[in-house]
Amino acid sequence: MIDSVESSLKCPLPLRTYQRVMMAHGGGGRMMRELIEGMIIPLFDNSILNEKDDSAVIEINGAKLAFTTDSYVVNPLFFPGGDIGELAVNGTVNDLSMSGAAPLFLSAGFIIEEGFEFEILRKIVLSMRRAADTAGVQLVTGDTKVVERSRGDGIYINTAGIGVIKHSLKITPGSVQPGDAIIINGDIGRHGIAVMSAREGLEFETTIESDCAPLNKIVKKLIDSGIEIHCMRDLTRGGLGSSLVEIAETAGFRLEIEEHSILIDEQVSAACEILGLDPLYIANEGRFIAFIPLNDAEKAVNIMRNDDSGRSAVIIGRVSGEKTKIVSQKCISGAHRIIDMPSGEQLPRIC
Amino acid sequence: MIDSVESSLKCPLPLRTYQRVMMAHGGGGRMMRELIEGMIIPLFDNSILNEKDDSAVIEINGAKLAFTTDSYVVNPLFFPGGDIGELAVNGTVNDLSMSGAAPLFLSAGFIIEEGFEFEILRKIVLSMRRAADTAGVQLVTGDTKVVERSRGDGIYINTAGIGVIKHSLKITPGSVQPGDAIIINGDIGRHGIAVMSAREGLEFETTIESDCAPLNKIVKKLIDSGIEIHCMRDLTRGGLGSSLVEIAETAGFRLEIEEHSILIDEQVSAACEILGLDPLYIANEGRFIAFIPLNDAEKAVNIMRNDDSGRSAVIIGRVSGEKTKIVSQKCISGAHRIIDMPSGEQLPRIC
Repeated sequence: MIDSVESSLKCPLPLRTYQRVMMAHGGGGRMMRELIEGMIIPLFDNSILNEKDDSAVIEINGAKLAFTTDSYVVNPLFFPGGDIGELAVNGTVNDLSMSGAAPLFLSAGFIIEEGFEFEILRKIVLSMRRAADTAGVQLVTGDTKVVERSRGDGIYINTAGIGVIKHSLKITPGSVQPGDAIIINGDIGRHGIAVMSAREGLEFETTIESDCAPLNKIVKKLIDSGIEIHCMRDLTRGGLGSSLVEIAETAGFRLEIEEHSILIDEQVSAACEILGLDPLYIANEGRFIAFIPLNDAEKAVNIMRNDDSGRSAVIIGRVSGEKTKIVSQKCISGAHRIIDMPSGEQLPRIC
Repeated sequence: MIDSVESSLKCPLPLRTYQRVMMAHGGGGRMMRELIEGMIIPLFDNSILNEKDDSAVIEINGAKLAFTTDSYVVNPLFFPGGDIGELAVNGTVNDLSMSGAAPLFLSAGFIIEEGFEFEILRKIVLSMRRAADTAGVQLVTGDTKVVERSRGDGIYINTAGIGVIKHSLKITPGSVQPGDAIIINGDIGRHGIAVMSAREGLEFETTIESDCAPLNKIVKKLIDSGIEIHCMRDLTRGGLGSSLVEIAETAGFRLEIEEHSILIDEQVSAACEILGLDPLYIANEGRFIAFIPLNDAEKAVNIMRNDDSGRSAVIIGRVSGEKTKIVSQKCISGAHRIIDMPSGEQLPRIC
């Protein structure tokens, strides 16, 4: 079995052109996808991992569960609107939520650099507890490792999470249908710009705060309403742009979005202009898109607007019947632009 | 609720005497315990985490599950008898097994240092796959992060795992009873010395290989036999000595072990003598102790000896009725020695 696994690596993937791992391989873009799809998934090769969703859906003794993990290496550890602890809880809560699971239990693995201040560790752990309380999850198991100075960067946190799936929907890119509306729960780009500003010491007229937030409650409302959700995706590394491209490629259809519908805060927009960044590819930590049958789309938007995490929810586009697997954006000018996936993240280590 | 959490930190724990995290805080000894019990557990404060077992036991929709996590930062990544990938799978498989769970699903979170060679990554991932196949578990979800040079050390791997508990035993230090036999499944000290030798370039007459192995199959045989297992613990960071002390302190009884029963390979013993290390505190990755009612002890030893992971299983001691919470060792000389827990690990970063 292993031999066949090894030989499956011999396919001429672009990965083979790199000898070493580069920052972009962790950036949520095409290079990361090549690493994961070109090496890691083929080597493990099982039907659950092959689904390539943010959460694995598993069944144990009749209970249908979602299981996911993420490591957090954000730099700096504290930024406007959040910190690594809050991020580590919300990120995993959100990955579970995107499969429609109700998150229940989290684990935490800390890799701490020698010399890290206890007072900062205490703040981060407290922040995790607060975030867990807000999301209604329990952190039930953990691990602590310490590495020598300059073998880490303060602290890295891994969280894994388990949620329970009580609905019978199959919420995955493969369920996306022509005609589906694409809905987003708010403006984009806050998290990446907030982290970037803190890291580079940039100052704007008002502070741009991360959108870091748990999405399990807004998702529960959507599911409880009986709406047939086809797909959900949180817009983290790689941003809205990369998520759309990934879904288009897996679903097999063309996605069409409208620039004028996509909300971007003025400060975020100004920051992007100064820094030469495209807000479409900037990471968010409390934003997601949902693919919903057109006749339920308005209902879904209203449900989202009635939740704190979705006050400015809006339809940004639709799924076309064309099987071209591309994402096109109708710009405000009227022109059409093809949205591609970047190689890596414009801003590394934002989560 | 948070206020009470904060105030719970004001207790005068020894932790407060440190301003910064030291290597020993990750070493599996008393300082790590102080960090976890003095800060992390009080801040999260829930009944499952408060159990302080290696795995959390959780119930979802009637299914009784074990959930655990560990990060692996071993240095070097490859050592005689194993590598970080095999360790990351077996370590989490074993943590689940110690609660009597049958391990089913794992997650993997990779934190990779920029510049890490793809070829080495491929070897490690392949090793994880092999270990997963051997243990009969599936790796179903993962995450990859990349950090800049000198912000990591090649690769760190976190695994979390889920197992199912099908028995009705309560396998935990609190179940230990006076009269219980303490059984170990083999000799001690191999893993720590194997890693240490690789790291420091030490050479011995024959190569000392790590005992790294999955323990789920031997544990399944014990459970299936109907023996009333009271407690199990794998002897990783801190070794046999620290595990015994931890169990004595939680169980509330005195544990008595006999030096002559504890097997130590001659090469391991020689290495310990040269390096000034005590084999009792050296980490193992395929050794565990089981607390079994005396009348089932011989049966348990025989079951273990019939499994590859327990060929030289032996009773090393018993639980006394004395409520002194100490561990005493009857030495070969006839003298008695009190076994205490070290502050940290004698050899950092061995897992």
